[in-house]
Amino acid sequence: MDLKQFVKQSIGRWRSQRSGHHLAFAHFEEVRSTIDIMALDPQDPGVLAVCDLYEIDPAAIESPFKMSWEGESDWDEDEELKGSCILVPIPDPDRPQKGQLLRDRGYAETIPAIGQYSLNDEGIFTLITSYERAAAEERIWFTTPNVRFRVSLIKTQDGQGVTTASFSSEIRSSS
Amino acid sequence: MDLKQFVKQSIGRWRSQRSGHHLAFAHFEEVRSTIDIMALDPQDPGVLAVCDLYEIDPAAIESPFKMSWEGESDWDEDEELKGSCILVPIPDPDRPQKGQLLRDRGYAETIPAIGQYSLNDEGIFTLITSYERAAAEERIWFTTPNVRFRVSLIKTQDGQGVTTASFSSEIRSSS
Repeated sequence: MDLKQFVKQSIGRWRSQRSGHHLAFAHFEEVRSTIDIMALDPQDPGVLAVCDLYEIDPAAIESPFKMSWEGESDWDEDEELKGSCILVPIPDPDRPQKGQLLRDRGYAETIPAIGQYSLNDEGIFTLITSYERAAAEERIWFTTPNVRFRVSLIKTQDGQGVTTASFSSEIRSSS
Repeated sequence: MDLKQFVKQSIGRWRSQRSGHHLAFAHFEEVRSTIDIMALDPQDPGVLAVCDLYEIDPAAIESPFKMSWEGESDWDEDEELKGSCILVPIPDPDRPQKGQLLRDRGYAETIPAIGQYSLNDEGIFTLITSYERAAAEERIWFTTPNVRFRVSLIKTQDGQGVTTASFSSEIRSSS
């Protein structure tokens, strides 16, 4: 599977169950949400703004998309988990299974972020995003065309500690 | 990482947080448990009994181990989750990253089972075990020497449906 196929298979509405593990306290968090992933035109003003922000030639990008989510956590039922971001892949011309992923906002921190992605032979998409004091590592794979899983970690910048891990099961929604 | 190293790194006591996702009902289950993984001597009577059960030459095996667990689920606090099994790897002589894993009991079903394992370049251990009406798929990887993750799925035998998925964070315990 290449990036183009991976993004294509991700397009749609997903019903997500996410479990957060706070490792130091062995605490669980449960989140139910709806995630919409929408293909964007490479000429979309939001996509061009991201290219501009990172000084990237719009000709180098592939399959940009928008992700939005809306959910509820069992930690605070009054808090609305809602947001969206634009994601812009830039495949490495020399190594087609690797590249960069630009985001107008990270979801671990609400600042723009550049992640390094790779896709392996088993179809596992891995994304590593370094922030000032932490790194986020995310693995996403499809187990069937309509079920995907996502494991996300926040590691300390030195890579030695893991503070939180979460697991999402995402099922394609017919509505 | 090869199988021998993978088993070696797994030896010890682990504090585990497991989240079960029951996909059809978007239901969560939370389990806290202690897992002990112990190296066994290839001549251990339990190991020889497993070889005998599957008619395997004991000379073909590598790094057998025992896994035992004890935990509590938020679904039924009176129910004690407790058990153990013996696991016996048989590396494929021609493809060192692949092989079979014999168990005296599966944990998805309480019958003996033969799984097919593989270890990829990123150190992800994948185990697929086929039962009569279902298949279990498990991926385990270390993110640091003392933190490992495990994603387990139960798929329908035709591979089209996923009934449950679970995610475990396992932290090496000093006690």
